[in-house]
Amino acid sequence: MSYIKDNFMLKNKTAEKLYFNYAKDMPIIDYHCHLPEKQILENKPFNDIFEIWLSGDHYKWRLMRNYGIDEEYITGNKSNKEKFTTYCKVLSTAFGNPLYHWSQVELKEFFNCELEINEENAEQIWDWCNEYIKINDTTPQKLIEQSNVKYVFTTNEIFDDLTTFTKIAKKGYKFKVIPAFRADKIMNIEAEKYNEFVDKLGDIKTLNELENAIEERLKEFIKAGCVAADIALQAVCPVTEKADANKVFVKRRNGENVTEEESNTFKGYLTYFLFKLYAKYNIATELHVGAMRNNNSVMLKKLGLDTGYDSIAEDNSIKYMSRLFDRLNSENSLPKTIVFNLNPKMNTEIMTLIGSFQSGEAKGKLQYGPAWWFLDNKAGMYKHLEDLTATGHIGAFVGMLTDSRSFLSYPRHHYFRRILCSYLGELIENGEMTNDTEFVGKVVKDICYNNAINYFGVE
Amino acid sequence: MSYIKDNFMLKNKTAEKLYFNYAKDMPIIDYHCHLPEKQILENKPFNDIFEIWLSGDHYKWRLMRNYGIDEEYITGNKSNKEKFTTYCKVLSTAFGNPLYHWSQVELKEFFNCELEINEENAEQIWDWCNEYIKINDTTPQKLIEQSNVKYVFTTNEIFDDLTTFTKIAKKGYKFKVIPAFRADKIMNIEAEKYNEFVDKLGDIKTLNELENAIEERLKEFIKAGCVAADIALQAVCPVTEKADANKVFVKRRNGENVTEEESNTFKGYLTYFLFKLYAKYNIATELHVGAMRNNNSVMLKKLGLDTGYDSIAEDNSIKYMSRLFDRLNSENSLPKTIVFNLNPKMNTEIMTLIGSFQSGEAKGKLQYGPAWWFLDNKAGMYKHLEDLTATGHIGAFVGMLTDSRSFLSYPRHHYFRRILCSYLGELIENGEMTNDTEFVGKVVKDICYNNAINYFGVE
Amino acid sequence: MSYIKDNFMLKNKTAEKLYFNYAKDMPIIDYHCHLPEKQILENKPFNDIFEIWLSGDHYKWRLMRNYGIDEEYITGNKSNKEKFTTYCKVLSTAFGNPLYHWSQVELKEFFNCELEINEENAEQIWDWCNEYIKINDTTPQKLIEQSNVKYVFTTNEIFDDLTTFTKIAKKGYKFKVIPAFRADKIMNIEAEKYNEFVDKLGDIKTLNELENAIEERLKEFIKAGCVAADIALQAVCPVTEKADANKVFVKRRNGENVTEEESNTFKGYLTYFLFKLYAKYNIATELHVGAMRNNNSVMLKKLGLDTGYDSIAEDNSIKYMSRLFDRLNSENSLPKTIVFNLNPKMNTEIMTLIGSFQSGEAKGKLQYGPAWWFLDNKAGMYKHLEDLTATGHIGAFVGMLTDSRSFLSYPRHHYFRRILCSYLGELIENGEMTNDTEFVGKVVKDICYNNAINYFGVE
Repeated sequence: MSYIKDNFMLKNKTAEKLYFNYAKDMPIIDYHCHLPEKQILENKPFNDIFEIWLSGDHYKWRLMRNYGIDEEYITGNKSNKEKFTTYCKVLSTAFGNPLYHWSQVELKEFFNCELEINEENAEQIWDWCNEYIKINDTTPQKLIEQSNVKYVFTTNEIFDDLTTFTKIAKKGYKFKVIPAFRADKIMNIEAEKYNEFVDKLGDIKTLNELENAIEERLKEFIKAGCVAADIALQAVCPVTEKADANKVFVKRRNGENVTEEESNTFKGYLTYFLFKLYAKYNIATELHVGAMRNNNSVMLKKLGLDTGYDSIAEDNSIKYMSRLFDRLNSENSLPKTIVFNLNPKMNTEIMTLIGSFQSGEAKGKLQYGPAWWFLDNKAGMYKHLEDLTATGHIGAFVGMLTDSRSFLSYPRHHYFRRILCSYLGELIENGEMTNDTEFVGKVVKDICYNNAINYFGVE
Repeated sequence: MSYIKDNFMLKNKTAEKLYFNYAKDMPIIDYHCHLPEKQILENKPFNDIFEIWLSGDHYKWRLMRNYGIDEEYITGNKSNKEKFTTYCKVLSTAFGNPLYHWSQVELKEFFNCELEINEENAEQIWDWCNEYIKINDTTPQKLIEQSNVKYVFTTNEIFDDLTTFTKIAKKGYKFKVIPAFRADKIMNIEAEKYNEFVDKLGDIKTLNELENAIEERLKEFIKAGCVAADIALQAVCPVTEKADANKVFVKRRNGENVTEEESNTFKGYLTYFLFKLYAKYNIATELHVGAMRNNNSVMLKKLGLDTGYDSIAEDNSIKYMSRLFDRLNSENSLPKTIVFNLNPKMNTEIMTLIGSFQSGEAKGKLQYGPAWWFLDNKAGMYKHLEDLTATGHIGAFVGMLTDSRSFLSYPRHHYFRRILCSYLGELIENGEMTNDTEFVGKVVKDICYNNAINYFGVE
Repeated sequence: MSYIKDNFMLKNKTAEKLYFNYAKDMPIIDYHCHLPEKQILENKPFNDIFEIWLSGDHYKWRLMRNYGIDEEYITGNKSNKEKFTTYCKVLSTAFGNPLYHWSQVELKEFFNCELEINEENAEQIWDWCNEYIKINDTTPQKLIEQSNVKYVFTTNEIFDDLTTFTKIAKKGYKFKVIPAFRADKIMNIEAEKYNEFVDKLGDIKTLNELENAIEERLKEFIKAGCVAADIALQAVCPVTEKADANKVFVKRRNGENVTEEESNTFKGYLTYFLFKLYAKYNIATELHVGAMRNNNSVMLKKLGLDTGYDSIAEDNSIKYMSRLFDRLNSENSLPKTIVFNLNPKMNTEIMTLIGSFQSGEAKGKLQYGPAWWFLDNKAGMYKHLEDLTATGHIGAFVGMLTDSRSFLSYPRHHYFRRILCSYLGELIENGEMTNDTEFVGKVVKDICYNNAINYFGVE
C-alpha cells in the first residue's frame, strides 16, 4: 500500500489542524490553466487511465526521458498499457520528484487506488483504474466538480472562438469556465506563422489597426466573462516608440523576416500597449517570465510545442521590468499584475521590485505568483513561501493555480495547501508567530480561495 | 499575550546555553547605521509610539503598501493613532516577515509591552506605550544606552559638518558616536544636484582638485574618530583611466549632462581612487552592492529618497569586482573591505572572490557582510551563515549591524545572535561540530563584538 | 575526543539503515580527479602528515588565508610542524566548513586518530599520525586500496605521456587507473604558452591539422583505456564557423596575440568540434562551467595555477549551452555528457536544459554532476539533491567524485553517501516516499557505484 497517509506533508499537529479545519474544504479557483473548454463541454468519458493520465502530460514524458526511456514508450507506437507500466517503473525510483507525489495522490483521489506505484504493481493498478473508469463514467465535468472547483480560467488565443463559453455558461454547471485573454501569438513576430495569426484578426496593415483589433477582441472576451490576461515573455524588453514598432510590424506584414533586434523593438512596445489596455479594462495581468522554450529542435519538429523540451531561462530583464512598471504607473496605467517567474534565483529581485509599485487600489495589487511549472514542488514552494513571507505580505497572497492541461491536476492545490499549513504550523509550534489557530485559519482560507476571488472580482 | 518566549528562535538547549551564557550580554558595535548624530546630541524625548516607531521607517511603510493600504494611512494626513492601528492590523497577518518579529520584540524590550500586535489590541498598545514613554522620559541616548551599545558608526556625507561629533565626544556618554565617511554624493555624477554637492567642497574644476578635496575631508573625518568608509554601488564599473574620468568630470562641472557610459567611466575611476585612498589611511571600506534604487518615480517626487521604493538589483559585475580588487592588491592598496551584497544569488560568487584576496594583514581582512536590508530576516541569515561557513571562516566574521534610521532597531542584533546560536546549537546537537560549548561560546562572543572591535581597531 | 560518531550526518534510523546496509561498503569509482598517476606507480611512502595532508591542498591553504594567517605558515618557509599546528588552530573554529569535517574524518579513517583537531591537541596529533605513518608504511596505492576504490580517472593533458598507465595496468593492482582526455591547453588560445603546447602535438599550422592531431591523441588515450573527456569553460561560447576559427588559430600560430573576441570565436568552434569527436568515439564528456580562475595576479606569479585563488563565476551562457547541445543533437553528435556547474544559482537552469536532450540512448544520458569544489559541502549537496530530485530523476544519477589532488580525499564519497542516505531517510520517515528500504537500498547502491559503472561502460 502507498506511503501516502492522511497527514501527508503535514509536519505537526498544528499543521494538521490548519489543513483539516480550514484549508481542505475550501473551493478552488484555478486562475490559470490550459484545460480545453471544448472538452469540458463535450464531456466525453475517458477510455482508460493512460488517456487521462499520460496521453498529454509532458511533465511525465520528461521524467521518463530523464531516466533514458525510449521515445517509443513515451509518445511512440507502444501500446497504452506498455507505456503505462513503463511510467510506473520509472516513477518508482523518482524519489523527491513532484510527479512521484502527484501521481500517487491522483490515483487515490480520483480512482480510490492506494497501491504503491512501481513495476510490480503496475498491471494491477492498470486493471483497477480502468475498471474504476468504466464503472464510474469518468468525464471532464465530473472530475472538475469532484475537485470542488468553482472557477476555471482557461487560456485562450486572441482569435479563439468564444461560443463554447457561452454554451457552458448556459449549462448551469457547479463551476464557471472563463477565458483568459492571451495575445502571445500576435506578440511573437518572429514566428513562422505570424502573418497567418494576424490575418485571423482581419485585414491588418499597420500597428494602429492591430491595436484596434486587439481591443475589439478583448471586448469580446470580456463579454464572455474574461477578467484576466496572460503575457508570456522570455524576458521583458525595453519599452520602445510606437513608430519604430510600427515599422517592424509593417515589414513583417509585407512577408519579410525580422531580426532579433527588430523583434525586441516590436515586443517592447506591444508589451507596454497590452498592459495599458488591460489597465483600461481593469483586466488582471498574468505575466510569465523565465522560460526558455523549444531547446530541442529535432523534437520540436517531431512532436510540436509544449511536449517537454522547455527549460528555465537566464533572465536579466529586471531593470526593464522596473522601467516598464514605472512608466505604466506614471501614466496611471499599471493594471493589477501577477508576475510568475520560473527562475528561482530571481524570486527576491522581482518580489522587492513589485513591492515598489503597490498601492491602496487593491490588497496586493501586484502579486508574486506561486511556485510554478518547474518550481511546482516541495522545495520550490518552501522557497517561495520563505521568500514571500520575508519580503512581501503573505496575508495578501492569491495562492495556487495548476497551469495544467490535465483534468487530474487539482490535487496540486491540495499539495500546496498542505505545504502552506505545514509551513505555518511549524512557525506556530516553534513560537515564531501567534498560536491563535482560528485567526491563522482565516488567513489560510483567504490564501486558498478568498483572496483570489476578491482579486479577480468574480464573486 | 505575545508568542515571544525567552527561547525565541533558539531551537534547542545548546542554543539557549550559547545565547544566554555568551551572546546575550555582549555589548553592541553598530558599525554601519543611519542614526542622526544631531538627534543623539539634542536628546529630545519622543512624544508618542508613532513618532519613534512609524514616522520614519520605510520598512514598515512598505509592508503596509504590500497589503494594499492607502498612502493616507502611511505617510499621508491620517492621525498618528489611525496610522498606528492600521499598522497593527496589517502586521497581524504578516507571518514570517521580519517586521512581524522585530515589532513585537521592540514593544517588549523598549516598552515592556507583551500584548500581541493585532487590530484588536492596537488601541491598548497605543495607550500602554504612550503612557510608558511619558513616565520613562524616552530619549535617543537612553534607548542607545539601554541597548548596551558601545559604538555607533553613523553614515555621513563627505561635506557634513562634524562639530556634533566633537560635542558628543566631550559629553562622556557610555557609548561613542563615530562618523563613517561617505563620498557617494561626489560619486553619482548623473545626479541633478551633483554640482551643488561638489561646490560644498570648494571651487573645484578638475578631478585632481576633487581628489585633493576628498583627501582633505577624509583627514577631517579621521580627526573626528572615523575608521570606516561607505561606498554604495548598484554594480562595480570597470576601472578606467584618470584622464578619461577627468574629461567627464570637467564636462559635468561645466553644467552639461553626462551619458550613462560617461557616468560609468567616472565611477570606475573614482571607485578605484577611493579604495586606494582608504587603504592609504587604513580606513575599513564598507562596499554595498546589489540595490536598484528609486524604482517608482511618482513616489520619488512625492516622498523623496529612502521611502521604500528600492529593490534588489540584477548585478553582473563580479568580473569587475575581481579586477578592481586585483589591481588594488597588485598596488599594495587594497584596504580592509566588507562587501555587503543585497542579492542572495551572488553570495557565494562574492564570498569565494574575496577568499582570493585574503592575507596575513588581518583576521578576515576581506569580509562578507551580514544579511542586510531585504535579507535581514531569518531565511536571509540562515542562508548567509550556511554560505559563509561553507565557503569562508565563520570564526573571523565581524557580525551584525543595523543599517537603521531607528533608535529602536538594536534588537536586530539580538535577533541575529539568537539565530547564530541556534545555528551552532543545532550543529552541536547533531554531532556536526565540537560540543565544547565554552570553546564555542568564545567564538560566539568574538562574532558578537570582539572581532568587529579588533577589525576596526577602536579599542 | 572527536565529535564524529558512527551516525555522523545520519539524521535518523532509516538513514543509518540505508547507509550501513547499502551504501557504506559499495566500492568507489572516482570518475574525475587529479591524482598524479606517476606517484601511484612510484608508490613512495609519505614522510609525515604534513606531506600527505597540507603540502598540496589549496582548499586548506585558502581556509588559513580566510582567517588571516600569514603566507609563511601556509606555503612559506615555516617548518612542516609549524604549518600543521597553525592549520589545526585555524580549523578548530571553522564550524560548518567542509574541511572541518573532512579533516577530522581523514584522521580517523587513515590514521586511526580520534583526537579533536584544535590548537591544544595539535602536537599530539602530529606525533600520533607521524608515528602511524612510519609504522604502517603509508603509500599512495595503500591509501587507494584501503578506500575500496575500483576506478580512478585521472585528468590528463592531451600531450601527456601515457606509458605510466600501461605500466600500471600490468601491475594487477586491485584498482584501475584510467586517463581522462583533456584538451583545455589546446583550447585556451590566449595563454602565453599556447604555441608551446600545440608544438607538442607536432608541426601544426592549420585548424585542420590541429583537429587531426587531437583525434590521433584521443585514439591513443582510448588504447590506454580512456572512456571520458574533460572540458573546462568559464562560459560556453556561441558555436562559430570553422573558417573563422581557423583564421584565429593561424594568427596565433604565427606568434600574434588574439583579442578576447577572437579567442571566443576559436573556443566556440573548438568546443563544438570536441563534443562531436567525443560522440564519434562514445567518450563521455565531463563539462565544467562556472569557475573564474586566477583572480589574484600577485599570487599567480608567486605560486602558479590551482593554489586557491579561483572563485565562482557569473555565467550567462545557458542560451549558448542550449544552442550547442541542440546543434550537436541535430547532427546525431551529442555524446553522453555530465555538466558540472560551480554556480548554485544555475542549478535548475542547467538541470532543466539537459532534461530537454535526454533520450533512450542511456539511463541519464545527460547528467547534472554532483556538488563540486566550492559546493562540495553539506549545504551544497542538500541543494543539489533537492534540485535534482525536483527537476530530474535521482535514480539515474551517477553520484560522487572527488576532483581532488589528495590521496586522502576518498572519505568525501562517504560524506556524500551519508548525506544521500540522510536525505532519503528523512523523506521515508516523513512519509514522503516508499518505506521499502530494500528497494530504496538498491537505488542507493546504484547511485554510489553501479550507475557510474554502467554509464562509463567500464565493467
